Amino acid sequence: MNDDFMEEAIAEAKQGLSEGGIPIGSVLVRDGKIIGKGHNKRVQDGDPMTHAEIDCLRNAGRIGTYKGTTLYSTLMPCYLCAGAVVQFGIKKVIAGESKTFPGAKEFMESHGVEVIDIDSEECKQLMQDFITVKPELWNEDIGE
Amino acid sequence: MNDDFMEEAIAEAKQGLSEGGIPIGSVLVRDGKIIGKGHNKRVQDGDPMTHAEIDCLRNAGRIGTYKGTTLYSTLMPCYLCAGAVVQFGIKKVIAGESKTFPGAKEFMESHGVEVIDIDSEECKQLMQDFITVKPELWNEDIGE
Repeated sequence: MNDDFMEEAIAEAKQGLSEGGIPIGSVLVRDGKIIGKGHNKRVQDGDPMTHAEIDCLRNAGRIGTYKGTTLYSTLMPCYLCAGAVVQFGIKKVIAGESKTFPGAKEFMESHGVEVIDIDSEECKQLMQDFITVKPELWNEDIGE
Repeated sequence: MNDDFMEEAIAEAKQGLSEGGIPIGSVLVRDGKIIGKGHNKRVQDGDPMTHAEIDCLRNAGRIGTYKGTTLYSTLMPCYLCAGAVVQFGIKKVIAGESKTFPGAKEFMESHGVEVIDIDSEECKQLMQDFITVKPELWNEDIGE
């Protein structure tokens, strides 16, 4: 757990917000270095599959094994993103918060993933401010 | 269940193969009409997240609710793709086969998804022929 990496994920979330998108960001880390980052692009790309974590993992490219990687996300991963974590064998996830959205924490844990929720005020505020303004967009993003 | 839709998914898989990619295809159907289709693009786009089902759901675009949709895939969805199914509330999945790869059938079923495995010889042959030639690529795609 390194605050600088969550700061990078938050910077990605803010970048998404500045593009008119949903403010969720993610970074993938290995050996103390960021090897991928991304943010939700539902609005920007008209792409319902590009959640922040998916964008991040896409941008990391074909890295082969995910052994030793840690995925940071400003929000607890949903089933789509948690499914990627489980399928590709990412063993550690650090989430900015899970108050806005509980996500699929238990699902990941049941597959041996260590999940840490840092309950960040900044991450919660980002989502709350966004949902107050665009509740429909948020509901669309989580399939509700 | 409609054989024509699986045929379209197989056509997508073959399209992927012709591009040098992994031969897995998918279509999304609602009200008897295909509203999205796609195929695995790991090789073509250098994108480890673009499994066939993700490509299909991306191409379907921002359709709002997934109520009444059925997802066809030539291969039983993995956790990434099954996670998308569960998160977005797709209630029916038809898989071409699960002999090559068991996928996340139980996970989907435990979330109320009806999963039908048609055990298609053509779908199995496509994957077996591919894996014989490019085993490393297949292992990479499922994170092994």
